[in-house]
Amino acid sequence: MAGNPERRAVLVDAGIAVLAREGARGLTFRAVDGEAGVPTGTASNYFTGRDDLLRQIDARLHVRLAPDPKVLEALLSERRDRALVTAFMRDLMDRAVRDRTGYLALFEMRLEATRRPELRASFTASVRGDLEQGMEFHRAAGLPGGDETVAVLYLAMLGLLLEHLTLPGVLDGALEGVTVPEGLVDRIVRTVVPEA
Amino acid sequence: MAGNPERRAVLVDAGIAVLAREGARGLTFRAVDGEAGVPTGTASNYFTGRDDLLRQIDARLHVRLAPDPKVLEALLSERRDRALVTAFMRDLMDRAVRDRTGYLALFEMRLEATRRPELRASFTASVRGDLEQGMEFHRAAGLPGGDETVAVLYLAMLGLLLEHLTLPGVLDGALEGVTVPEGLVDRIVRTVVPEA
Repeated sequence: MAGNPERRAVLVDAGIAVLAREGARGLTFRAVDGEAGVPTGTASNYFTGRDDLLRQIDARLHVRLAPDPKVLEALLSERRDRALVTAFMRDLMDRAVRDRTGYLALFEMRLEATRRPELRASFTASVRGDLEQGMEFHRAAGLPGGDETVAVLYLAMLGLLLEHLTLPGVLDGALEGVTVPEGLVDRIVRTVVPEA
Repeated sequence: MAGNPERRAVLVDAGIAVLAREGARGLTFRAVDGEAGVPTGTASNYFTGRDDLLRQIDARLHVRLAPDPKVLEALLSERRDRALVTAFMRDLMDRAVRDRTGYLALFEMRLEATRRPELRASFTASVRGDLEQGMEFHRAAGLPGGDETVAVLYLAMLGLLLEHLTLPGVLDGALEGVTVPEGLVDRIVRTVVPEA
């Protein structure tokens, strides 16, 4: 395996772009080489196969889509109430809109996981880890609501992310006076999270 | 265009199976012919192109995934309370689990819609129609909560459908004593829908 970490990162990001644009079936080493602008055959020196590439895409998306530590720190200086949960969810939505390609790649990975048991196992572990981390964060921060609140909030946000990033027109104007996605994030939190 | 409606239905259902199994990029007329077990070239006599096939798949999924009128009628003889909303959502989830292929095809259609403006327009109109119909149904039936309740419930169920049908292990055991998906459907309704 070739070891240039910068080139590896460029190839993985190229894989994310190909996955979002072409779908899982379009994700070939040749397409990744083309997207990265490197000679054909390069990707095969960096990944043992397609499963390895998909695993590295998953790991990279965790970094790309993670909250900015400075934003987190600033938010954690605020009162631990429902308004703070809204601010966290708005930050999540902002990140998804800014890196729509990364999120669409995650959705493609889910569908590809239905076809590839090895990917399903590793991706399940990583998404489950995120959910448990979210519950642990909520608890440790003393935010209102328990694990059940976090689980329902997680599912509603997952639904909103899918809807807004794939068919944004569905929700636009569906609730009078509610902007999409910001206003809808507020309504989700208000419905799901107890006041204190 | 060839006009045999039974053969057309077989081809559209074959398209749904291909879409779910191979992803949108695998959806070719040749693959549909192969899946349906008809001579190569048949699908091209029934659809003007890929967009036409995708539109007919969308229309067919509306029929395949619709509630059973007898189940609806029986449920509508019950008291119009939160427990009835739970029963409707459980029926939705049952249908999705029974026709997982149909639901996975819908998720593939969403991702394909990000690449094809014509599909995006028609699919947006059809999903928006479903959401508005859901709000109208909820109102007419006198179920607890308003349009906002229905919108948040819709998003949480969309998230649960996506999670459970693609990565079922993520939610399994995440909340102690809560079965997946049934128990989680109950918790979503309890969290989102007011008691009366």
